[in-house]
Amino acid sequence: MAPESTPNHDCAFLDSVITDSRVAHAESVREQYATDASPHSGRMPDAVVWPGSTDEVAAVLAAANDRGVPVTPRSGGSGLEGNAIPSAGGIVLNTAEIEHVEVSPDDLQATVGAGVVYEDLNEQLASHGLRFAPGISSSDVATIGGMVATNASGFNAVRYGETRDHVRRLEVVTADGRVVECGSGVVKTSAGYSLKDVFVGSEGTLGVVTEVTLGLVGIPKHRRAALVTFPSRAEASRAVADAIGSALVPGAIEFIDTTALTVLNAYYDDISFEEQPTLLLELHANNSGIEEDLAFAKAICEDHGMRSWDPADEAELDDIWQARRDKYPASRAYHKEWDVALVGDVVVPISRYPEIVETVSQVSEELDLLTPCVGHAGDGNLHFTPLVDPDDEEMVERAHELNERVVRKAIDLGGSSTGEHGVGIGKRKFMTTEHGPAIELMRSIKETFDPNGILNPDKVLPDA
Amino acid sequence: MAPESTPNHDCAFLDSVITDSRVAHAESVREQYATDASPHSGRMPDAVVWPGSTDEVAAVLAAANDRGVPVTPRSGGSGLEGNAIPSAGGIVLNTAEIEHVEVSPDDLQATVGAGVVYEDLNEQLASHGLRFAPGISSSDVATIGGMVATNASGFNAVRYGETRDHVRRLEVVTADGRVVECGSGVVKTSAGYSLKDVFVGSEGTLGVVTEVTLGLVGIPKHRRAALVTFPSRAEASRAVADAIGSALVPGAIEFIDTTALTVLNAYYDDISFEEQPTLLLELHANNSGIEEDLAFAKAICEDHGMRSWDPADEAELDDIWQARRDKYPASRAYHKEWDVALVGDVVVPISRYPEIVETVSQVSEELDLLTPCVGHAGDGNLHFTPLVDPDDEEMVERAHELNERVVRKAIDLGGSSTGEHGVGIGKRKFMTTEHGPAIELMRSIKETFDPNGILNPDKVLPDA
Repeated sequence: MAPESTPNHDCAFLDSVITDSRVAHAESVREQYATDASPHSGRMPDAVVWPGSTDEVAAVLAAANDRGVPVTPRSGGSGLEGNAIPSAGGIVLNTAEIEHVEVSPDDLQATVGAGVVYEDLNEQLASHGLRFAPGISSSDVATIGGMVATNASGFNAVRYGETRDHVRRLEVVTADGRVVECGSGVVKTSAGYSLKDVFVGSEGTLGVVTEVTLGLVGIPKHRRAALVTFPSRAEASRAVADAIGSALVPGAIEFIDTTALTVLNAYYDDISFEEQPTLLLELHANNSGIEEDLAFAKAICEDHGMRSWDPADEAELDDIWQARRDKYPASRAYHKEWDVALVGDVVVPISRYPEIVETVSQVSEELDLLTPCVGHAGDGNLHFTPLVDPDDEEMVERAHELNERVVRKAIDLGGSSTGEHGVGIGKRKFMTTEHGPAIELMRSIKETFDPNGILNPDKVLPDA
Repeated sequence: MAPESTPNHDCAFLDSVITDSRVAHAESVREQYATDASPHSGRMPDAVVWPGSTDEVAAVLAAANDRGVPVTPRSGGSGLEGNAIPSAGGIVLNTAEIEHVEVSPDDLQATVGAGVVYEDLNEQLASHGLRFAPGISSSDVATIGGMVATNASGFNAVRYGETRDHVRRLEVVTADGRVVECGSGVVKTSAGYSLKDVFVGSEGTLGVVTEVTLGLVGIPKHRRAALVTFPSRAEASRAVADAIGSALVPGAIEFIDTTALTVLNAYYDDISFEEQPTLLLELHANNSGIEEDLAFAKAICEDHGMRSWDPADEAELDDIWQARRDKYPASRAYHKEWDVALVGDVVVPISRYPEIVETVSQVSEELDLLTPCVGHAGDGNLHFTPLVDPDDEEMVERAHELNERVVRKAIDLGGSSTGEHGVGIGKRKFMTTEHGPAIELMRSIKETFDPNGILNPDKVLPDA
């Protein structure tokens, strides 16, 4: 989408704050930073900087804060809710070049720059038998800084938790350019307010994360996986709720609906999935007990009338996971004149998962929308991507109505409007419904941490 | 210790705010709430209230806030750092009678009142095969509200995490009496600032927690345990660091030093432990793979010259855990004229565990103190309890010097001044060293959430 025009913030001051080669004022560069990976409308920044160090981040923020110039932090730009779109113009501060990595294998932790890409980090960790474990889709683009900003997670959160669960320490630059360390490299502490948890998930609206100390897990010695098909999406999703409710802790358990499989089959020449409601189940363990767990999981699937159980070996598994990650591009490519209107991301208590899956299906039918669904089902997390003709305003409107109805249903079921993508621009309107009076406390934190309101304006919190 | 005298806050207003039977002004009652389980000096409150509902908590806080009367929240009173001592007088607000429990077994969660005792909750959960898992020592006294306030943890945190990791949702009453809900009953969310994490570990200085929705884990089907002795504390603690560094995830791994075993042997008529540096190792699993893990753990212990490996069956294990929990009373009883001067509670990165164990031993020798040590070693957490004659001021002073030197060493090693007991009164003086400039951000949160400074004054944050 064409970037919106923007009010002009004079950013010439940046030339005396940071090395020439780390500032761009040229339109051609600014244009690249007007949007992110989301379908949200972009907006042109007035300048882009990519500091090489924490001190440079601090210098930029101090100067911008003095002048009241907005700063939108960014790194991978893979956000799906417009989290990194510079909605008020000003400066895009790209932390992508802060990319040091120091691994402390004996402490099962690593200290890394905000710009380190998730997959690159895990490649470095693999030589130590370790892994940063949330398991995100955009693994070759998303950075650790961005993951902290949105509290990202994905395939493996069901076993290993979301990004928050692994953050032991943060280095953060405040709106006025102070550098603070929050937390330390220990697995637990009760020493005062947990500032790191204030910054995790705050999407750059409270400070800019420059360095992160992460807890790691061992790469499991054994992995078993199966693709399991079911007679209906209801049975598939009930099997997930039963498995989790019985305290099985899978490495991953993904729900893929028939429409998503149709879209994937159309995307590939060389892979073909059976077009039935499917679970992709993966188990992790360090000992042979994994076979008992696998038998237990299979018995639960049988209880729900499973149609087929197709064990996947390591090579097949890589293909299957790649397909799962390709669901978004495959959805975009499915119909040459259509595109994804939005990427739904609700989460509900696991016992309500069948209901939210059913809601997406029913409302899509009612609104005459084609909506492929996948989900990190073990977390109660469901993604849905209604496909629309972007030039058909009425159709786009229907997709947003679907989102609205599904999000409100998720909140009614005791869930949340976003499981892992963050609030960004797209979920702001649900914040008051979801949080009630707590919004006022969030607002007071924002005002305290960023009194001039320069950090990622018009994100996360709804308008007052 | 005799409660200090206190300035008089007029608390007569409480009689019109809350039912008669829920307020006490009598000295005999107030005296019971002047101290907690810690060795810190007590102080008399001017009144004690024990609200039966969230609305009553809100009414008390709104009225106290209007009048600038201090309110110190409390429930179990088992804190070890003076967390619940009403340092500025005023009102002790006891949440012990808010004790409803609603279990949602299919969602692996429970919603409970702040006054529910840890062990009582786990008894109710056991019928569902579930457990709230941090595994604390004062399990028959400590309440869920208190555990949230201090971010408590214990024996089983090495596998299951600290209290924070299990808190999905909080109901909190703010200083001015607003009731807010933070979070929801889902395993993950990225919907705005994580207010629940601001309140967890804030020791009642930012708000009063009235209700908690907790994530639960399944009770493991299999448990194996062993008492393992080593030729030296250095080898015992190195074995722990190696086990954790190799990504073994035990259910518990406790270090017990020779002095602690001497103290325990003196405490019991019917139990006798070999007085050697000892690890109590426990493994949890749902399948037979546990035997492989046990063999792996044993091999690590052998690498460190283990002297004996004594498997414990379920009945023995209960006795051993009771002994471990009795370490504090046993230390207090060891010498009829002595008492525990303080309960040390440092935590370090696991690779530095041998160093911190050695530091306590060396400094104790240097200062001529008898200091039994135990620790949740798998977390890098060490407790040490120097024994002193409370009437010997110089000896008490030496115990505090030991604490000072060990805490500063822990911080130097990249650790924290408190792993699980909280800051309370005793650790305030270390906060600036531990947190640096981050203290100013903590202070700004306190000022924003509690502008009149009525909530648990003189706790957590150091004097400005």
